[in-house]
Amino acid sequence: MPVLGQNQYGKAENRVLKVTRDGAVHHLKDLSVSVSLSGDMDAVHLTGSNAHVLTTDATKNTVFAFAKEHGIDSAERFGVHLARHFVDSQSAVTSARIRVEEYGWERIAGDGPGGHSFVRTGQETRTAQITFDGTDLTVVSGLKDLVVLNTTDSEFRGYVKDRYTTLPETDDRILATQVHARWRYSWTGGEETAPDWDACYAATRGHLLRAFADTYSRSLQQTLYAMGARVVDHRPEIDEIRLSLPNRHHFLVDLSPFGLKNDNEVYYAADRPYGLIEATVLREGAEAAIPVDLTNLP
Amino acid sequence: MPVLGQNQYGKAENRVLKVTRDGAVHHLKDLSVSVSLSGDMDAVHLTGSNAHVLTTDATKNTVFAFAKEHGIDSAERFGVHLARHFVDSQSAVTSARIRVEEYGWERIAGDGPGGHSFVRTGQETRTAQITFDGTDLTVVSGLKDLVVLNTTDSEFRGYVKDRYTTLPETDDRILATQVHARWRYSWTGGEETAPDWDACYAATRGHLLRAFADTYSRSLQQTLYAMGARVVDHRPEIDEIRLSLPNRHHFLVDLSPFGLKNDNEVYYAADRPYGLIEATVLREGAEAAIPVDLTNLP
Amino acid sequence: MPVLGQNQYGKAENRVLKVTRDGAVHHLKDLSVSVSLSGDMDAVHLTGSNAHVLTTDATKNTVFAFAKEHGIDSAERFGVHLARHFVDSQSAVTSARIRVEEYGWERIAGDGPGGHSFVRTGQETRTAQITFDGTDLTVVSGLKDLVVLNTTDSEFRGYVKDRYTTLPETDDRILATQVHARWRYSWTGGEETAPDWDACYAATRGHLLRAFADTYSRSLQQTLYAMGARVVDHRPEIDEIRLSLPNRHHFLVDLSPFGLKNDNEVYYAADRPYGLIEATVLREGAEAAIPVDLTNLP
Amino acid sequence: MPVLGQNQYGKAENRVLKVTRDGAVHHLKDLSVSVSLSGDMDAVHLTGSNAHVLTTDATKNTVFAFAKEHGIDSAERFGVHLARHFVDSQSAVTSARIRVEEYGWERIAGDGPGGHSFVRTGQETRTAQITFDGTDLTVVSGLKDLVVLNTTDSEFRGYVKDRYTTLPETDDRILATQVHARWRYSWTGGEETAPDWDACYAATRGHLLRAFADTYSRSLQQTLYAMGARVVDHRPEIDEIRLSLPNRHHFLVDLSPFGLKNDNEVYYAADRPYGLIEATVLREGAEAAIPVDLTNLP
Repeated sequence: MPVLGQNQYGKAENRVLKVTRDGAVHHLKDLSVSVSLSGDMDAVHLTGSNAHVLTTDATKNTVFAFAKEHGIDSAERFGVHLARHFVDSQSAVTSARIRVEEYGWERIAGDGPGGHSFVRTGQETRTAQITFDGTDLTVVSGLKDLVVLNTTDSEFRGYVKDRYTTLPETDDRILATQVHARWRYSWTGGEETAPDWDACYAATRGHLLRAFADTYSRSLQQTLYAMGARVVDHRPEIDEIRLSLPNRHHFLVDLSPFGLKNDNEVYYAADRPYGLIEATVLREGAEAAIPVDLTNLP
Repeated sequence: MPVLGQNQYGKAENRVLKVTRDGAVHHLKDLSVSVSLSGDMDAVHLTGSNAHVLTTDATKNTVFAFAKEHGIDSAERFGVHLARHFVDSQSAVTSARIRVEEYGWERIAGDGPGGHSFVRTGQETRTAQITFDGTDLTVVSGLKDLVVLNTTDSEFRGYVKDRYTTLPETDDRILATQVHARWRYSWTGGEETAPDWDACYAATRGHLLRAFADTYSRSLQQTLYAMGARVVDHRPEIDEIRLSLPNRHHFLVDLSPFGLKNDNEVYYAADRPYGLIEATVLREGAEAAIPVDLTNLP
Repeated sequence: MPVLGQNQYGKAENRVLKVTRDGAVHHLKDLSVSVSLSGDMDAVHLTGSNAHVLTTDATKNTVFAFAKEHGIDSAERFGVHLARHFVDSQSAVTSARIRVEEYGWERIAGDGPGGHSFVRTGQETRTAQITFDGTDLTVVSGLKDLVVLNTTDSEFRGYVKDRYTTLPETDDRILATQVHARWRYSWTGGEETAPDWDACYAATRGHLLRAFADTYSRSLQQTLYAMGARVVDHRPEIDEIRLSLPNRHHFLVDLSPFGLKNDNEVYYAADRPYGLIEATVLREGAEAAIPVDLTNLP
Repeated sequence: MPVLGQNQYGKAENRVLKVTRDGAVHHLKDLSVSVSLSGDMDAVHLTGSNAHVLTTDATKNTVFAFAKEHGIDSAERFGVHLARHFVDSQSAVTSARIRVEEYGWERIAGDGPGGHSFVRTGQETRTAQITFDGTDLTVVSGLKDLVVLNTTDSEFRGYVKDRYTTLPETDDRILATQVHARWRYSWTGGEETAPDWDACYAATRGHLLRAFADTYSRSLQQTLYAMGARVVDHRPEIDEIRLSLPNRHHFLVDLSPFGLKNDNEVYYAADRPYGLIEATVLREGAEAAIPVDLTNLP
């Protein structure tokens, strides 16, 4: 007999742009919001009865309506409102998860104080996931596609040599990665005690960059841990951080067939395969709650 | 004090093509293989010592060498060899996970028995994930990007109407989705009792298509459950299946401003947002082990 | 003084699905249609006057309305109707170009004669471009993303050796490519003399595959020419064909460090860089009219 | 009889990273370089003789070797060296085209004067195409994926109303686009008279942004022309510019069903379909040489 297990549903990738006008000075929030609801949903799966089903279309409408009703001062706060709303207003819904991607914009230089012209920053994408189970809120913020590179201060030596090992050791290589990070706040609810989400984001991003730049690296694992530990050390509101760091290999090109010496100058940037280094760093005593795989299943 | 949590590393997306020659008749296997190892890896994170680290480059070499040494008769069997190898041969490695994507090829029509010419099928991508913890093997097979569509026998009615509900009910709509499925075999090791992986794959794929086509659908959840339940009912070697079904909306175009009647003929295929319906179907008594999120975190 | 040069505008990627019901047997056409119009458009560029501008929104509406009014029996015929319409009905429009991508569907096996269930074939994308200048119609059909591979009967020898040449010659390699083809029909208008677009497409696709499979290849250029020439030879209605063939390199993996011999069995499929071979084949006396670059400018 | 028409070949997307060390201060250039050669290549197409063929592998090697031998001070200058080299050194090659994509990096803030740590800017991609026909050099530089948005000062009114027009006029809308630009320099060779490529790039990019921000827009065509004309007006070394501007529609969400007024605050950002506005702006007397289609054929 087949049995229904975990299930969830909702509307994904609602792309909402919110403009706030402060006189002639305009402000932007640009989000992609995905809603996912769980609860007493056996009937719809087993018999097709939709009596407990809030339509995914209505969840989409809610995202846009809330952008008007509550504004969007941060991705996290917006997600908290939405998550609470679905659980509190739908008796069949016991849990709601809101995922947000946020795209950055900056003013076009010289646009002056009356600015209404913007250019996409195009750097990392900011992310947030807000889960509400009727009692506790869990907020996991993060970023992805922040590409960083050190041209030196990276070596790779002293590793295991098995039958299939051919890689030569190196004491000076390029270290490059595309940072994919998720960090969990210890906060579980209560508006008055909520972190300053935007300030936390900026500071955490800064710590990740700083640790990447400042670590003399003997392996990407060491750099990863330094990045995660620096965040846990400096941000008391964060209990856990998960990092997924593809090793974007830059191989020194062999120019000797052409009578040229390549003194760590010319590199070939490879696409695939790539090393993939992933780990969680936790505050002592904290329990791990961020899923192990930040990226696609196979 | 920061503490190191779960961690894993390896080489991702090793693209291996294996040609087998049966006289003038050639056979192809085309895989992307990702290796991920876990174990006693504190030192490399905390101090940068690589003494326990098998290089990701060596894991890549192993994939290619094993294609020669063991051949590739199925993605699953190939993954089992690799997973066992890393745990059995590396004392610091306690767990290995191999993920495979397989791309289909068919012979170019008329190529005859001496065939060496192929064309990519381009339909779904077959997937497999093999995990070995030193004792048990877990095999989760699957497929992704199989796009299916019913032009009728789908309705959507009787749902909750809240303040934000504007969707009209319909008794005849297009139902289309891009099937993303993962199924877990109960098998945990023992070569002699292993399922016939290729036959199981073909049969499971067939059941998914069959159930999609045959179900009169009152909601995509109902169709999803019918697909999963049919697999569990017909394939005793499968204990669990997880389905992630984006609702690829096809909206009826309003042609009335042009004096035309749209009698379920002309649809606009939307990209975003989209409904996303996900659920697990289990054999009674089985425990859920497939992660809830088959697709990207936000 | 800046001067306005060539300009065009329209709505791109209108995704239309057309269902035709033959009793209980349903038929599908699934297109992405892009409209581009040119003509007397100086004013809108220079002063912002839209008096000559048919909105891109109206061109979108026209695509959907025509799917109802004229049906879609082939991408080419549908495009001809649209192109004629815009030039004939808009006095300011002197030229219209319609581009179509078509996605293939097949019936789910066993679906029976009352079939309404489909699965995307997922193989190549069919393309068509129809241009009307008020007098002549030009139809360029094509396909893209058809991936083919020969496991033998390909060599590469006798090439120029300059200072930067290190590639060893080979007398047996894998030849693989992703076919991107455009072919131009000599037909310039007249419904009664129009080719049977679907039959031509199927036949041309067959010739491309056949020539790829049957050519013993000394270079991808030779294979490309054989493919194009076979089409021109067999299809009198086609005057010109342009092929863009990326060389999807499959490198033999060096397994000798592991004491293994790689007898043309195990290959590494590389992504980038890749060879890119492009050429036009013409019927004698025909003039080239397909642009040289089928793919993106840099 | 089939006849060989225009043909070209080479190695595409050679990804080269060049590090220059100025003491402890490092500098980066990160390019993807594509080589395409034309000339006396009938034999390789017709008979498979490679006697005139410089291998695409050698062209790849040349890119990496030249990065060492000549350095990379700008994408344009690097391309000029490569293009000249292939034509001058290969008797069968009569024309060479080099295409470059350049990815931006900035120093990680606070990295200090001894900086070796970088983060990808992630904004637009800079492009360059250099063609040499044995006599003249043609340089077309550009950028793509620069996303800009005005929250006001855009209207759309007074357009043609045909049978298929339903769009309401608006006097205040969001105007957003993803700038794709190519501009051609009048320079045709002569090192001493070459423009300062990097300075020209920065200035042209600035003019495009400035014109987008400063134009009160009655149509995207008007904004496009203003952008192109400003470049031609301010940069005497540029004779022609082609712009391809997708209209990234932001639709005002109808919140009235929820009793809410949407005072130009909440927008839905649509993906497809999209308007696509393309035009060339020329210096008076200049001849158009940039291809009409900057983006993919269908």
